[in-house]
Amino acid sequence: MPAATIGPELQRLIDLLAKMPGLGPRSAKRAALYLLKRREQVMGPLAFALDDAAKKVKACTTCGNWDSIDPCAVADGERTQSILCVVQDVGDLWALERAGAHKGRYHVLGALLSPLDGIGPDDLNIGGLVARAGEDMVTEIVLALPATVDGQTTAHYLTDHLEAIDVGVTRLSQGVPVGGELDYLDEGTLTAAMKTRRPF
Amino acid sequence: MPAATIGPELQRLIDLLAKMPGLGPRSAKRAALYLLKRREQVMGPLAFALDDAAKKVKACTTCGNWDSIDPCAVADGERTQSILCVVQDVGDLWALERAGAHKGRYHVLGALLSPLDGIGPDDLNIGGLVARAGEDMVTEIVLALPATVDGQTTAHYLTDHLEAIDVGVTRLSQGVPVGGELDYLDEGTLTAAMKTRRPF
Repeated sequence: MPAATIGPELQRLIDLLAKMPGLGPRSAKRAALYLLKRREQVMGPLAFALDDAAKKVKACTTCGNWDSIDPCAVADGERTQSILCVVQDVGDLWALERAGAHKGRYHVLGALLSPLDGIGPDDLNIGGLVARAGEDMVTEIVLALPATVDGQTTAHYLTDHLEAIDVGVTRLSQGVPVGGELDYLDEGTLTAAMKTRRPF
Repeated sequence: MPAATIGPELQRLIDLLAKMPGLGPRSAKRAALYLLKRREQVMGPLAFALDDAAKKVKACTTCGNWDSIDPCAVADGERTQSILCVVQDVGDLWALERAGAHKGRYHVLGALLSPLDGIGPDDLNIGGLVARAGEDMVTEIVLALPATVDGQTTAHYLTDHLEAIDVGVTRLSQGVPVGGELDYLDEGTLTAAMKTRRPF
């Protein structure tokens, strides 16, 4: 398309929208048109919400969750104090909350160890975790990390660092997903599910 | 998920992102996390670009295309003056420009006639079209409207209104899409392609 067809203000908006996950160059154009048709209802409020959230939403100094208050609503809430669930990212915290799978508190690492990507222990919120794990009321650390190479590397590293502390370290079980057909599962999952089989 | 897990500023941002086409509630959360991690590079600039485009980008008073200058770069550019291509929306204009399918000027209707949705002739930019069709240099009006019921209703309505003017009215041909397998095409398209078959 000749550069002149779309003006610079509109092109810049499209380029920025196209950077968002879930939107490509074409859907960014559709989104831009959608927004221009709804300037009062969506476009203006979205500009304000982006600016407002960028200024106000910060990582909780206690647990690393993102909120506009510190400590965040989750860290400060009425939750089981004895269990601390370690997650990679705020998105994982939200997923566990959506499932109602964890009633205790969280600790967000912010990343996983990844030597290939140059991400080392200093890039993760590990100091805070060790300090919290040492609190008297904490009896169990659940490592809810992804079942990937980086996730498991990080889990091993954390387990080593938590060994000196009198606290139980657990991890999520691996196996057949609920609703999962055996036929469609990879060999690793099937082998893990067989190895850790339980009495009916 | 308990309402308290996500703070109000972040929730408002997620709700607004979820309104965009191509993003649902889950991908809006992912997009919000993505943006919060890139406040300087993407989130701030996007907030500014939205605000800036909302203020500056207007419909061209000549052709209806969206641009920050009026007449817009397309209406004002060096283009074939004799052919006027009528499209429903700015997105269709962009699609034709991307294809390089039309070297003339455009006229954006802004909507299609849709009695069921209460969209009548007054909601379309028809007055402007009739005026432009009457200009001496214009010899052909191409109706590049969708091959839907509303698109064809609008095409018939426009043809009736342009009859009094000494201008040729054409429409896009219908048939097998380039690269299209006959097996996957609907009966209507196949019938139309057969009816309008051409010598090889």
